[in-house]
Amino acid sequence: MDMAKIRLCVEHPLGEGQTVPLERDQAHYLFGVMRLTEGAAVALFNGRDGEWQAEVTSAGKRGGVLTCRSQSKPQGAPPDLWLLFAPIKKARTDFIVEKAAEMGAARICPVQTDFTNAERIRRDRLQAHAVEAAEQCGGTYVAEVDDLARLDRLLSDWPEDRQLMFCDEAFAEASYGTPDGAPRKLSDAPKGPWAVLIGPEGGFSPAERKRLHNHPNAWPVQLGPRILRADTAAVAALALWQATLGDWG
Amino acid sequence: MDMAKIRLCVEHPLGEGQTVPLERDQAHYLFGVMRLTEGAAVALFNGRDGEWQAEVTSAGKRGGVLTCRSQSKPQGAPPDLWLLFAPIKKARTDFIVEKAAEMGAARICPVQTDFTNAERIRRDRLQAHAVEAAEQCGGTYVAEVDDLARLDRLLSDWPEDRQLMFCDEAFAEASYGTPDGAPRKLSDAPKGPWAVLIGPEGGFSPAERKRLHNHPNAWPVQLGPRILRADTAAVAALALWQATLGDWG
Repeated sequence: MDMAKIRLCVEHPLGEGQTVPLERDQAHYLFGVMRLTEGAAVALFNGRDGEWQAEVTSAGKRGGVLTCRSQSKPQGAPPDLWLLFAPIKKARTDFIVEKAAEMGAARICPVQTDFTNAERIRRDRLQAHAVEAAEQCGGTYVAEVDDLARLDRLLSDWPEDRQLMFCDEAFAEASYGTPDGAPRKLSDAPKGPWAVLIGPEGGFSPAERKRLHNHPNAWPVQLGPRILRADTAAVAALALWQATLGDWG
Repeated sequence: MDMAKIRLCVEHPLGEGQTVPLERDQAHYLFGVMRLTEGAAVALFNGRDGEWQAEVTSAGKRGGVLTCRSQSKPQGAPPDLWLLFAPIKKARTDFIVEKAAEMGAARICPVQTDFTNAERIRRDRLQAHAVEAAEQCGGTYVAEVDDLARLDRLLSDWPEDRQLMFCDEAFAEASYGTPDGAPRKLSDAPKGPWAVLIGPEGGFSPAERKRLHNHPNAWPVQLGPRILRADTAAVAALALWQATLGDWG
């Protein structure tokens, strides 16, 4: 059996000899779209048992069975990193979720800010994007997508031990400083639970900005002299975090 | 006159009192789409004279005139940074160009690799994306988009003084090392002319990989344990470069 090129995220437990029944849409994808037949290899993960090389042992139009043969990756533990962002346009929101999942965020939290146009989000659709990104990027876990929440409520209940890297496009305008004048350096920051917050494209409101800068866990970070779109800023900020404090070491 | 919210990239020289005739599509955008009228403010840049606040002094359906009032930004000098990437799908290619421009690349070079499906590119369309990104991100210069070129030819004529940060999605698989065993650290790298090369989604060929790893100017960089899509990798790599060697200091 060759190493599988197709990866699937499943709910079912995985282990040596374990059979995994397929849901109808997964069977359609494997046998209808990708034209796999019995004996073909598929890699499976479920967020708990690592990655397994499985073999198609039964293939039908409406279902099928895979059988786990050998573990190909141990279960990875994602860095305890949340991405908070303000959703705006649908395509860019999809993109941010895909990118955050690839970049290894454990939890993706769409937030409503003072200047966010309060579009509803389709949490199930965004979660499906996160699953697809995990299948594609070779990860063994799936980022969890939250429902839309108000930023001010999240900040009111903010966990004491979670640091907050806070990126604001208006930073580029250099119109305000950190509360004590000197910026804190990310390389001096503690490891452990973190969140990265990307400002909405309309910027934060003055009240939000003040609150964030006065937050004891906040680490304001500047992403250069140009104003980045929210999706660009999300990837750039996650890259800096991963390289400095995450699993890119 | 309020500060302009709309930014336009023009060819015309800019300076105090300078009048700038508009092309037809720019007039359509300002007066037809954005509904500006005489007296409205527009910010202008041309890649040479910095950013100017200009006023609409004549508005018509097929043309119009802006008059420069005061300089609002000096001319910025972009870091001497090229982005080399292998174009695949149209939407993702557009995205990479937009992102590279926002992230401050001076030159964007689509390259054909051994495993690139040699789609032609529309250089003029990609250049228009770079202009739009410059207008949107507040930069005073526009990244130049090159025609598609073969990677092996670019490497054969590689400038002696230009370093090459080389990102390969297959790095995540840890299947090969640097030629001398120990990876070079980007933070020890010289400033000056650089390029960032993003691998194609199908990966580099073994011959390309060997050539890159043996290249005296190459700095292999790992972008974490997950396999990133080319567009994600482009933003992440440019963020690391900008934070370490570029203008995000």
